[in-house]
Amino acid sequence: MGTDGAYIALGLKVWKAQIERADKLFGSLSSEEVQREIAPGRNRLLYLWGHLTAIHDAMLPLLGLGERLHPEFDAAFVSNPDKSQAATPSHEQVRQAWSAVNSDLQKGIEGMSWSDWLLRHTAVSEEDFAKDTSRNRFAILLSRTNHLSYHLGQAVLGLKGSV
Amino acid sequence: MGTDGAYIALGLKVWKAQIERADKLFGSLSSEEVQREIAPGRNRLLYLWGHLTAIHDAMLPLLGLGERLHPEFDAAFVSNPDKSQAATPSHEQVRQAWSAVNSDLQKGIEGMSWSDWLLRHTAVSEEDFAKDTSRNRFAILLSRTNHLSYHLGQAVLGLKGSV
Repeated sequence: MGTDGAYIALGLKVWKAQIERADKLFGSLSSEEVQREIAPGRNRLLYLWGHLTAIHDAMLPLLGLGERLHPEFDAAFVSNPDKSQAATPSHEQVRQAWSAVNSDLQKGIEGMSWSDWLLRHTAVSEEDFAKDTSRNRFAILLSRTNHLSYHLGQAVLGLKGSV
Repeated sequence: MGTDGAYIALGLKVWKAQIERADKLFGSLSSEEVQREIAPGRNRLLYLWGHLTAIHDAMLPLLGLGERLHPEFDAAFVSNPDKSQAATPSHEQVRQAWSAVNSDLQKGIEGMSWSDWLLRHTAVSEEDFAKDTSRNRFAILLSRTNHLSYHLGQAVLGLKGSV
């Protein structure tokens, strides 16, 4: 395996650290607190949490780990802005989906071999992947970790506003 | 080199993408706009920009690429909160420091070989590194990329407030 394992282990370590940070941050919120906006007129904490859940859910097929658990989250938390939909998943539904999605992701990731990370992610065709082999599963891991950090930076503003 | 290069190239690609995003975001601000808070009572955009500059500056010694260019940025943008210091670097000074620091980092990174990334970063002793080899330079790259994403998520809130 050479040193491949070292790079992947580091990528996974940073991913897990951000997931734990998100677990702690969002998991501690009351049903009242999740309705708070991160800044006046901006997204609510519940929207950010649902958005992250939807994006992580989509990682399951991207990494070849299985079908999505909650494709219905896209309309509520990805393709439409916050407060635009009549019915969106509840606090409890988001909490459960977040937990189920990240648990499935974690199990799937543990079942991957080092070499799996350099395979194409499933949203790129074999032809396009042959032209650019950087469109692999490790790239998904890095970009989704940064996506999570980006929104954690925002979510913490909604939190601190409480004290 | 095996597949090592593939992982490092991906790490660098994500790093560069975030740097370009920051260049575009902060570089476009007027001297009035950098004084804006990302949310009422929170950090100003100038503070975030100076903070990122200081943290990237500290990467130079951490990655073994040279001395810091602006250690004086720490007092203004790291060890003290925004608006607490009588004299802080000006908009122009932050702009120049950001550019110089990231330019030096980029040059230094280009001079690194694949195997350099698995060397210990310089804030960890040889003894501690022997116990935990994940405290290497690639770990610094990944964590600082996520640090940048975290604050970009916040900075964009200050921007959007303008329209």
